[in-house]
Amino acid sequence: MQPLKIVFLGTSASVPTKERGLPAVYLEYEGRRFLFDCGEGAQRQLLLAGKSPTSLDAIFITHYHGDHVFGLPGLLNSMELNGREKPLYIFAPASTLHRIRWLVHAIPFSPSFPLVWKPVKGREVLWEEKLFYIESYPLKHSTETYGYIFVERDRRKLLKDKLDELGVKDWKVYRKLKAGEEVEWNGAVLSPEDYTLLVKGRKVGYFVDTAPVEVPPVDYIIFDATFLESEREKAKETLHSTVKEAAEVAKRAGAKKLFLYHISPRYREEDPLLEEARKVFGNVEVARDLQEIVLT
Amino acid sequence: MQPLKIVFLGTSASVPTKERGLPAVYLEYEGRRFLFDCGEGAQRQLLLAGKSPTSLDAIFITHYHGDHVFGLPGLLNSMELNGREKPLYIFAPASTLHRIRWLVHAIPFSPSFPLVWKPVKGREVLWEEKLFYIESYPLKHSTETYGYIFVERDRRKLLKDKLDELGVKDWKVYRKLKAGEEVEWNGAVLSPEDYTLLVKGRKVGYFVDTAPVEVPPVDYIIFDATFLESEREKAKETLHSTVKEAAEVAKRAGAKKLFLYHISPRYREEDPLLEEARKVFGNVEVARDLQEIVLT
Repeated sequence: MQPLKIVFLGTSASVPTKERGLPAVYLEYEGRRFLFDCGEGAQRQLLLAGKSPTSLDAIFITHYHGDHVFGLPGLLNSMELNGREKPLYIFAPASTLHRIRWLVHAIPFSPSFPLVWKPVKGREVLWEEKLFYIESYPLKHSTETYGYIFVERDRRKLLKDKLDELGVKDWKVYRKLKAGEEVEWNGAVLSPEDYTLLVKGRKVGYFVDTAPVEVPPVDYIIFDATFLESEREKAKETLHSTVKEAAEVAKRAGAKKLFLYHISPRYREEDPLLEEARKVFGNVEVARDLQEIVLT
Repeated sequence: MQPLKIVFLGTSASVPTKERGLPAVYLEYEGRRFLFDCGEGAQRQLLLAGKSPTSLDAIFITHYHGDHVFGLPGLLNSMELNGREKPLYIFAPASTLHRIRWLVHAIPFSPSFPLVWKPVKGREVLWEEKLFYIESYPLKHSTETYGYIFVERDRRKLLKDKLDELGVKDWKVYRKLKAGEEVEWNGAVLSPEDYTLLVKGRKVGYFVDTAPVEVPPVDYIIFDATFLESEREKAKETLHSTVKEAAEVAKRAGAKKLFLYHISPRYREEDPLLEEARKVFGNVEVARDLQEIVLT
């Protein structure tokens, strides 16, 4: 499988701390580079992570609250100054996209590269490639907000030994089997179930900012964990989630691993967060700034 | 003398590097806290420097180019979230102030503290206190741009020994002498020249972004040094200064010390900059991110 790289650029909520910057997550796969949210400082964090701020293909904004978008004007201006030419796509909730555009153009900005604004209007596939796609997923916050799911497509790996036994060498047969189709060969019907191995694609979900919601099955889940249970009322009031709630969502989504994200500045220690999460869901980490995860 | 603290929060030009953030300079004196420019990341740099982003009294913006203002929306939102109540004054060039306001309000923002916008229209005193004032000074750039000068007022220190010899114990006499006035005492005229010592106040000038310009006499000068002489054409074209030009300005201003500031990302080493400057002006440093200078 192709390596799938994720870097947490900023992991605080609302305001930065010495240790945590503002929300932005970098995802790289198959030569494509994406950003989810763009809090203030994202461009510098990309540099510190050794990733190029100029070569992003698309930016997916969950919602228009300042801590998720104030890094956009600087990042886009730097792309222009660095001579970017290829189009940049920015996906953002339809009802507030115009305010994000105002933010980007408040200081006159006419980039030489095409800047393509894409309103998100519900659950939809936003980006499609041969090996993967990215879709939006409605969340529950004080303004129109979407989570984003990276979905690697399932693929079929040929069982070469079995095909060699039969004497099959025809690439047309291979192609059909890989596409999941039955093939007639030498009077027999070869089924993809028998001659290929189904390799399930990986799914990564980024769900921030949100009250607890049911989400589709994902393998790796990055979820809003702004508060501890002791602040549940505050979480409810501000439409965020507690660590326990994040763990419960991860469990129901059948995730392999949970990253607690969007951590309130009031929590300086990881242990109380991990302790609360582990009562519900074992494989959990508190996302850290500049932490790089490589899924191979 | 009261300590005068200066912290360089970001020292790059146009785009950040791993080592240098975007322009912002913090100045603290007599319980007052000021920011000159507010590039992206200024609030986080303040935290890293151990200074409170919430308690600034005023922000002085040189001009509206992105690298000097993109930190404003985040900083102001954090002030609000941190419960600030006292007014904040923002000074910016009159002709472009409205665009900076758009930037701050593009994402709806109605702070509970008074946000007072002050257009700067030429050379004028903008902030006055008993011990100091801050004035603007027109610079030469591609848009209306001002430098800012912090001026500590000269003061008279009583020559107590001489006054004691005469037997003067009257605080009214002291007050007049300190104010620089002659006083009649016991039939004699006491002159402030004879009975006080004139202590010259310190002056700090922040002159960025600009082509070389004549500036008023200052003791500490922070000057645009975007390029080396080898890129003089580029400096001319973009209305910036070279290191040599910055050194020449510092010399003519009678400065004690020059800080090279607004360093192009193309220069990763300090030595070539220092070498070029020292041919003209000896006491020079390349400003570094989070460098704190305490003038006592």
